[in-house]
Amino acid sequence: MSDSPIDPTLLDRLADVAVHTGLNIQPGQQLVITAPADALPLVRRITTAAYKAGASLVTPILSDADLTLARFQHGADDSFDTAAGWLYRGMADAYAGGAARLAIVGEDPMLLSDMDAARVSRAGKATSTAYKPALEKISNFEINWSICSWPGLSWARRMFPDLPGAQAQARLAKAIFAASRVDRDDPVAAWADHNAALKTRSSWLNDQRFTALHFKSPGTDLTVGLADDHEWHGGASPAQNGVTCNPNIPTEEVFTTPHARRVNGTVRSTKPLSHQGSLIDGIEVTFSDGRITDARADKGQDILRELIATDEGAAHLGEVALVPHGSPISQSGLLFYNTLFDENAACHIALGQCYSKCFLDGASLSPDQITAKGGNSSLIHVDWMIGGPDTDIDGIAADGTATPVFRKGEWA
Amino acid sequence: MSDSPIDPTLLDRLADVAVHTGLNIQPGQQLVITAPADALPLVRRITTAAYKAGASLVTPILSDADLTLARFQHGADDSFDTAAGWLYRGMADAYAGGAARLAIVGEDPMLLSDMDAARVSRAGKATSTAYKPALEKISNFEINWSICSWPGLSWARRMFPDLPGAQAQARLAKAIFAASRVDRDDPVAAWADHNAALKTRSSWLNDQRFTALHFKSPGTDLTVGLADDHEWHGGASPAQNGVTCNPNIPTEEVFTTPHARRVNGTVRSTKPLSHQGSLIDGIEVTFSDGRITDARADKGQDILRELIATDEGAAHLGEVALVPHGSPISQSGLLFYNTLFDENAACHIALGQCYSKCFLDGASLSPDQITAKGGNSSLIHVDWMIGGPDTDIDGIAADGTATPVFRKGEWA
Repeated sequence: MSDSPIDPTLLDRLADVAVHTGLNIQPGQQLVITAPADALPLVRRITTAAYKAGASLVTPILSDADLTLARFQHGADDSFDTAAGWLYRGMADAYAGGAARLAIVGEDPMLLSDMDAARVSRAGKATSTAYKPALEKISNFEINWSICSWPGLSWARRMFPDLPGAQAQARLAKAIFAASRVDRDDPVAAWADHNAALKTRSSWLNDQRFTALHFKSPGTDLTVGLADDHEWHGGASPAQNGVTCNPNIPTEEVFTTPHARRVNGTVRSTKPLSHQGSLIDGIEVTFSDGRITDARADKGQDILRELIATDEGAAHLGEVALVPHGSPISQSGLLFYNTLFDENAACHIALGQCYSKCFLDGASLSPDQITAKGGNSSLIHVDWMIGGPDTDIDGIAADGTATPVFRKGEWA
Repeated sequence: MSDSPIDPTLLDRLADVAVHTGLNIQPGQQLVITAPADALPLVRRITTAAYKAGASLVTPILSDADLTLARFQHGADDSFDTAAGWLYRGMADAYAGGAARLAIVGEDPMLLSDMDAARVSRAGKATSTAYKPALEKISNFEINWSICSWPGLSWARRMFPDLPGAQAQARLAKAIFAASRVDRDDPVAAWADHNAALKTRSSWLNDQRFTALHFKSPGTDLTVGLADDHEWHGGASPAQNGVTCNPNIPTEEVFTTPHARRVNGTVRSTKPLSHQGSLIDGIEVTFSDGRITDARADKGQDILRELIATDEGAAHLGEVALVPHGSPISQSGLLFYNTLFDENAACHIALGQCYSKCFLDGASLSPDQITAKGGNSSLIHVDWMIGGPDTDIDGIAADGTATPVFRKGEWA
């Protein structure tokens, strides 16, 4: 008996998918979970599933929206360049020692939208800097890691502002369960099938060895050079510790590393982006030789420009990803204001840090070698959506010939 | 409008006392808070008060009883010697960098009583070992720190098993507020008066320069040698970082360091002790030249013996504390099953680590010098209550003369 609007059986299945498909936790492995405290019903199920799978110790690091807000409401102005370096160094230490990592997202995507943008940006930069040693172990795919989601009440209210809270939460829960494939009878098997389908796409792209992709849609005419020796990935993938995991639950994308100095043209966003609790919408950006030369937005333009100014790499691309307009998340018609979902509803690009695993033999490359091949380096990695029902994409070969990849938003 | 059984005004005052009297947080100082997640209503108030007082960053580390239980219910047997060393090293790092530390206690004192005692003991030892670098900065009083409490529902149910949950929680809240002096009009001023009264007691004891205390009550005939150059403390005290704080909210004790090799006789506990989620009651222990030679308990004897076997120092005393039977917490007649309260209702002794601040010029002493003066060293520090309405205590001077200190449980 429970009066929760969230189906406990499907929550159990989501926990199983997170532990077995997302993380593929190994016997004897420690697990670090970050989550909002209100996600405890899911954290508890995941922790139990992880122990049953042999995890040696599960350590939760729980956050709370009101505590985050209290800082921006009452903190002294000179305090916003401070970060919990001790905690992030500890996390890097845990990952270096073999711990797996699960992030559960479920916060209000507009939590900080009424706070001072400069303070939010300073705090974000301080946190990114402090977090870098830990994030590198994730972006270099040294360990098995995953992200999944909890239908937080404040998030649900943003998505369904006209519904009572419990109904909004029930709708979001249903959408998360569907996108995460836990509404199937055997979710872990459904994920195996899905991973195989994504593998077919990424293998085809790897066989083509395109040197660039040309995106064309209303407001967008963009040529994205691909990094030398880039490799396409999608779905399950082996981490450097030998464990095959699904870093994102859900995922619909195949993705690779663009060439940070070979991106030219103009691109318009097709969905709003929630960044650090603020909304950025109607983005229009011009690239010249890989660098952003002009950036504007209908909403959140200051935040966009502060983001791009984070460091040199923040003005260059670190990821390009292909998602058909017919993807289940896109077809749900929902805007989640959450990258984990919205990036799986549309083709997207990311400013900032590239993934070293998106290079042939990427784990053996030095940072300098990655840079020489066109890989980007930055404190940030921020995805934004550029695909829609009118998106055409051509693959450009080394000799300049064009091969249709997408037509009208779908695989050609 | 709130249907919480806990008075929000008094919760606000408890937050103020924790930040201003307990921690005396300084502008620009970071703060690390450990708390059960269900204590968030108090954590949020304390965090807000800390930011208003100028804290640069408040980092909460939240625990959850169900997550703790999941480990003991589902963890693999070979996993119980594991600890989150990365997190505790991080905390030590935070304190070394100047952060203050607040622990909020409020857990079910019998949480682990149905779990396997050997596993609980192994996990406790692994945690104590991993936590030692951080704990040392606290027990050496290098930073300002404090402990206060939250009236957790499960804890309240243990204390008032015959009441409905909300009523039990209201009773516990009221008892915590009274003991923490936040039911007064100006709690911070009330604490200043209380600290002055404790200072009068500790100054008198320091002037006496006793070499031992002799405890006499039914079942107890114990001579506790005091360490050479011991110093009595009570209430507010300056940490090595120069900040005067109140490490315990509430506190009624004056305490010092016994001589680890000069304790002789037999002692019987007067209240049950909740240790790591299990209850130990009816303790009877015999000391010879400082070391426990015999230990039994009516309840939890195995846990007691495992505790004493943690390391060599666990079989010796590290603290002796005097609390009159007329103390407000004692007079409440409540048994809290929580050391923060029960130790302030009765004279007590602690097995394990001593406090270096309880020596004259303690901060300048090396570990070897502390040992030479009689200070004890251990992974543990566990207080248990030995005082009651019949407790007589004599102070023994170097020439052997006895001075009455307590008669019938009260200051003589």
